[in-house]
Amino acid sequence: MSATPSSTSRERFAAVIPAGGVGSRLWPLSQPSRPKFLLDLLGSGRTLLQATVDRLEPIADELLIVTGVAHADAVAAQLPHLPAGSVLAEPSPRDSMAAIALAAAVLERRHDSIVMGSFAADHVIPDADAFRATVLTAVEIAAGGDIVTLGIEPAGPSSAFGYIEAGEPLAGGAGRRVRAFTEKPSEEVAAQLLAKGGYFWNAGMFVTRVDVLLGHLERLHPQLAAGVREIAAAWDSDARAEVLDRVWPTLTRIAIDHAIAEPVAAAGGVAVVPAHFAWDDVGDFHSLAALLTPDASGGAVVDRDAPTVFDSAAGSVVIGGTKPVVVVGASDTIVVDTPDALLVVSRHAAQRVKEAHEALERAARK
Amino acid sequence: MSATPSSTSRERFAAVIPAGGVGSRLWPLSQPSRPKFLLDLLGSGRTLLQATVDRLEPIADELLIVTGVAHADAVAAQLPHLPAGSVLAEPSPRDSMAAIALAAAVLERRHDSIVMGSFAADHVIPDADAFRATVLTAVEIAAGGDIVTLGIEPAGPSSAFGYIEAGEPLAGGAGRRVRAFTEKPSEEVAAQLLAKGGYFWNAGMFVTRVDVLLGHLERLHPQLAAGVREIAAAWDSDARAEVLDRVWPTLTRIAIDHAIAEPVAAAGGVAVVPAHFAWDDVGDFHSLAALLTPDASGGAVVDRDAPTVFDSAAGSVVIGGTKPVVVVGASDTIVVDTPDALLVVSRHAAQRVKEAHEALERAARK
Repeated sequence: MSATPSSTSRERFAAVIPAGGVGSRLWPLSQPSRPKFLLDLLGSGRTLLQATVDRLEPIADELLIVTGVAHADAVAAQLPHLPAGSVLAEPSPRDSMAAIALAAAVLERRHDSIVMGSFAADHVIPDADAFRATVLTAVEIAAGGDIVTLGIEPAGPSSAFGYIEAGEPLAGGAGRRVRAFTEKPSEEVAAQLLAKGGYFWNAGMFVTRVDVLLGHLERLHPQLAAGVREIAAAWDSDARAEVLDRVWPTLTRIAIDHAIAEPVAAAGGVAVVPAHFAWDDVGDFHSLAALLTPDASGGAVVDRDAPTVFDSAAGSVVIGGTKPVVVVGASDTIVVDTPDALLVVSRHAAQRVKEAHEALERAARK
Repeated sequence: MSATPSSTSRERFAAVIPAGGVGSRLWPLSQPSRPKFLLDLLGSGRTLLQATVDRLEPIADELLIVTGVAHADAVAAQLPHLPAGSVLAEPSPRDSMAAIALAAAVLERRHDSIVMGSFAADHVIPDADAFRATVLTAVEIAAGGDIVTLGIEPAGPSSAFGYIEAGEPLAGGAGRRVRAFTEKPSEEVAAQLLAKGGYFWNAGMFVTRVDVLLGHLERLHPQLAAGVREIAAAWDSDARAEVLDRVWPTLTRIAIDHAIAEPVAAAGGVAVVPAHFAWDDVGDFHSLAALLTPDASGGAVVDRDAPTVFDSAAGSVVIGGTKPVVVVGASDTIVVDTPDALLVVSRHAAQRVKEAHEALERAARK
């Protein structure tokens, strides 16, 4: 068990887990019918969604998973212990602001006062204790009225993530004011940011009082705020389906970064808590391979019982499949064997998997 | 049809095709139960054995295939047009001299005088006309009493083949006397041989009068000669099985190179006809890949109907399999998908496939 404070001694806290995104660069493992968050990508025995819930459950008074209607049953089936009402099914994807705002509006009706935190369902954080301790620090700060983001200490000048620019320390010293959010930079610019210091990776984790979030939304996107509140009012009634069908499609499609985080940061209302735990969004097979522990041969396997041989194939990974696999002389190569398709990708080319899969779809149509 | 002389204007000629050898470096395509010679490795529509027969049939008065008893039915099934008695089944493998000598002894009983040529069942020679013309030159020379080998013009300083050292031209000019046979050299030594000139690759093709071959055998390995003649005498009778069972296991295991070619060459009885056609023994997947024609993406497929995409994967090959395959960023990589196993091998490591397969067998036993 974690060494975090019991829920009685702190702010009430609700964890919101938006579970969306196919993970197109992890094809053929991830597909629209089995998105990344439903997969046990690391062969740990828990899917990314389950591991996210496991990580948050010890500190959360309530857990809400927001997902597409197509996956609501699969999500509930993976989390049988959660109380009814924990899965909010979106009729159609309307980007992250609508998803998180819907959760906020539902929480507003269920609780007098509560802090919420939003955490993607498909990220990997091996040190759950360090994660929870950082979240609780963010919860404490958020209770004061700030929107608080967790800033990941950069492991290198990555061009795969946006950056958070931190300013002066907050009173109390546990966090810093956010000056601005930066879009994904080039690797060159990223290196400049790291040299300057005070920049963190933006992992999209936000902690905020529900009333603070909805207050900002009401001010900045009033139609969106009114829409999710109308839906939330009907959520636990017979009218839910009718109201959802009518209102949901009218909600503005916008990311929470652009809708709230950037304008509120510009006005001085966002804080960042530096996070010193390892974090990965497992965006492609190269990231995935880096999270695995190789055997004596230098290769690694995931989700396989059949024998596997790596001969002069250090850094290679075989995922899935029911028959024996031999990899010879092909180092840093990922082999993914699913019933639908076979992928062989060099780790340096992992970002190209999405395009190559699209080329296959075109070839298959011919 | 080829432009070769009709059989009436030349020596009678029998083609002997030893069909043995699993092709261990072509696993999992080739396996003891489906050896290389039974496979259509190039996706041409004909197996290597069938292509070998196709190549020889226009100039052969008789064709004999010598194979293991386990494959005799499969061989006959692939060659339904051959007359009964064309397939000689060895009860057990006893190396190339016994196989070829058995064929010679059977031919001795079936013909008054005939020249035989021995050609492996699992080599690739795209230009059949050039091959046949060279064989007929060898047949003419062999009629004079020499053992004649075909010497392949080296395409480079390969360490994968033995070499034939040629001496003075024969009278008539179509061939040269053989000074000696050289075992597989290092690449460095091979380069020295090519620089000296007068060296050819030894493709193991021998053309000789049947009585000349058996005469040499009687002198050099009298027990072997007597054994195959005893079996041949019983071959077309009810006694075949009894005699085979009794005599075959007593025959010396020796390669024709050591038994006949080397000692006879040392005594001046072997000639070589330079062969200017392309030849490959398709010993591993690197050789196989070099024989294929890539598509516009630089990749090639064999024995596949399902779609295949090569993205930044020039020189790669996908063989077999029923599901879509995508190869991304992995150039010069061979992917072999069979019902038993999946192999991913870099072309530069093609020679290691046999050892890697053995490692898999060990892993599977655990």
